[in-house]
Amino acid sequence: MSEWCAENDERISVEIDQSKYAHLFNLEYCIKPGSTDKSALLVLNQEINVSPIFLKLWSTFKLRVCADGGANRLYDFFKDNESDRAMYLPDYIIGDFDSLKPETEEYYKKAGVVVIKQQTQYSTDFTKALYLISVHFNSPDFRRKVLESTETNHSIELFSGIHEWYDKTLKANKSRTLERISLLALGGIDGRFDQTIHSITQLYKLSSPDSQFNLCYLSATDLIFFVPSGGFLLEYTKEFRDQCIGNCGLLPLNGPTEIIETSGLKWDVKNWHTCVGEGKVSSSNRFVGIDKCFIDVKDGIVMNVEVFIDRIANCI
Amino acid sequence: MSEWCAENDERISVEIDQSKYAHLFNLEYCIKPGSTDKSALLVLNQEINVSPIFLKLWSTFKLRVCADGGANRLYDFFKDNESDRAMYLPDYIIGDFDSLKPETEEYYKKAGVVVIKQQTQYSTDFTKALYLISVHFNSPDFRRKVLESTETNHSIELFSGIHEWYDKTLKANKSRTLERISLLALGGIDGRFDQTIHSITQLYKLSSPDSQFNLCYLSATDLIFFVPSGGFLLEYTKEFRDQCIGNCGLLPLNGPTEIIETSGLKWDVKNWHTCVGEGKVSSSNRFVGIDKCFIDVKDGIVMNVEVFIDRIANCI
Repeated sequence: MSEWCAENDERISVEIDQSKYAHLFNLEYCIKPGSTDKSALLVLNQEINVSPIFLKLWSTFKLRVCADGGANRLYDFFKDNESDRAMYLPDYIIGDFDSLKPETEEYYKKAGVVVIKQQTQYSTDFTKALYLISVHFNSPDFRRKVLESTETNHSIELFSGIHEWYDKTLKANKSRTLERISLLALGGIDGRFDQTIHSITQLYKLSSPDSQFNLCYLSATDLIFFVPSGGFLLEYTKEFRDQCIGNCGLLPLNGPTEIIETSGLKWDVKNWHTCVGEGKVSSSNRFVGIDKCFIDVKDGIVMNVEVFIDRIANCI
Repeated sequence: MSEWCAENDERISVEIDQSKYAHLFNLEYCIKPGSTDKSALLVLNQEINVSPIFLKLWSTFKLRVCADGGANRLYDFFKDNESDRAMYLPDYIIGDFDSLKPETEEYYKKAGVVVIKQQTQYSTDFTKALYLISVHFNSPDFRRKVLESTETNHSIELFSGIHEWYDKTLKANKSRTLERISLLALGGIDGRFDQTIHSITQLYKLSSPDSQFNLCYLSATDLIFFVPSGGFLLEYTKEFRDQCIGNCGLLPLNGPTEIIETSGLKWDVKNWHTCVGEGKVSSSNRFVGIDKCFIDVKDGIVMNVEVFIDRIANCI
C-alpha cells in the first residue's frame, strides 16, 4: 500500500474501535500512577533535573530506589536542606557501588535505608534495581527478611544475591501473571550518549508481553516510552495536553520499520516507512487529538513527548 | 564465525596494516581541524554548554554559522559581556526564523552579519545551514554577491534561494571532487529527544562516500560521529586520550548489525552481533590503544566518546 501523510487541524476528535488496539496507555499515569498500582521511582546517576516536580513524584510513587550513584544525586539534591534530606529517604540503594560515595553510603545507612551491595559485573546497576523492585513487590518473604535482618548486606549474598531472590520469587509465582509495575526512571537520558542509548535498549528489553514493568524515562525535556505493535491507544486529559506537553517523535531505534497508521497527530501517516539511516523519522510532531492518539506500528518503536516540567506540577 | 570478546590491559599497542582500513580519522581534528582545512562551526538552538572551550572553538574554525535560534544562544552566551558579543560575530545566520528573536536579528544585522531567511518547510534549519556552508566554500561568486549586495536578504530568494545556489554550485563543480568540510555542530544532542535523534539521522545521511562533510557533534559530555564500514582507524595523541576523554560506545542506531573487529578498546570484539532491541550494545567501553583504535563494522555505526570539556581547553 502506498505511503500517506496528511496535516491535521490543531484539534481533532479521534474515535478508535476497541478491536483496533491491544494496548491502552495513559500518558499522565507515567508520572502519576494510580493509587492502588504497584509503582516505583528509580533514581539513576545523573543530576536530578526535574526539580519543580521531584518531591511530588517522590510522594506519588510507592517505592523509591536509588541505583548506585543515584544516591549521591539524591543526597546532593538536598544540599541546602538537611531536614528535607532526612525526610526524603529512599527505600533501597542498590548497585556495585563503584559510584556511591562513602559519605552518601554512611548517611543513608545511619538513617536506616536498606543499602544492598551487588558486586556482579554481569548485570548493570539498572538491572539490579529492576530485580530488586520486582522482588520487593512480589515476595513478602523478602521484605520481611530484609527488614528484620541485622546482618551484613541485609543477609543478601554480596555477589548476586538479588538475582537468586528474583529467580526464587519468579518460581514461587509461576502459576500467575504478575501485576505490572509502573516504573519511572530519572537520569537515564541526560548523560553520556552511550548511557542514554543503553537506557533506550532497556525500553526494548522490557517490552515483551510478559514483562513485569511499564518503564518510562523522564528527562528535563521529555517523557520517553515504548510503543509496542498491535495497536496502541494513548490517552491524556485535555488539560494535560494543552498545558504540559509539546512536540513528540516516533523513533525507530531498532532499525527500519513501518508506521502502519497514526490518528491524532498533527502529521498523521499511513503505511509510512521510517528509518534513521535515511533520515526518515517522525519528529517535531505533536498531539492534536483532543484526548487521545492512536498509533499502530509494525515493530515496536520508541516515543518521546516533550514535557514542560514547571507546568506539570499543577497537573499531577 | 563465532563471536569473540576479550578484556584488554589498560594500555596496548595497536598496529594495523594500511590495507585493512579505508578511513583514517583523527579524533582531535573534530575540535581542532587543520589550519588549511575547510572547517565550520555550526551553532544549533540549544544553550551553549561547552563554555570552557567555546571561544577557542570559535577561533579555530574558519566559518561560524548560527542556525535560526542558535543565534539567540550565541547572543545569550555573552549576556554579561557586551564587548565580547560585538567581537564574536557569526559569518551567517540562516533559517526560517521561527525561533530567531527580533532583538537578536536586529543586533546581528546592525553589526553587519549576513542574515539569510529561508522560508521553505521542506528542509530543516540544519539542512539550510549545510547548503549555505557548502556554497560559501565552493562558490566565490556567491561570497562576492552576498557581501556586495545591499538588497533584502542579500539578494537571496526568500523561499529557498540557498537551495538554488547549492544546485548551481554543484553543477559548476561537477567535474571535480569537492574537498571535505570539517563540520562541528553544537547543540544537536542536548535538547528534546526527537531532535537528538534527528541530529543522529544527519550523521547517517552525510556518511555517503561523496558527502561534502565530516560531521561531528559536540555536547557537554560527548563527541559523536559516524564510523563507516570498510575499516576505520581512529587516531589520537597519547595526551588527549589520557587527559581529555573517557568512556565510549558503538551504537547501532539504524538497526542490528555486526562489529566485525575492534582493536584497541578495553573490551575488543570480533564477529559481534549488536542490536539495540536485544540490549546488545558496546557501551561503557574505552580506548586502551596507546595512540589508535581500529574499528571494522559491517554497516556504518554511530560512535560516542566521552570528553572532559574543562580539560580539553589545555589540549587544543
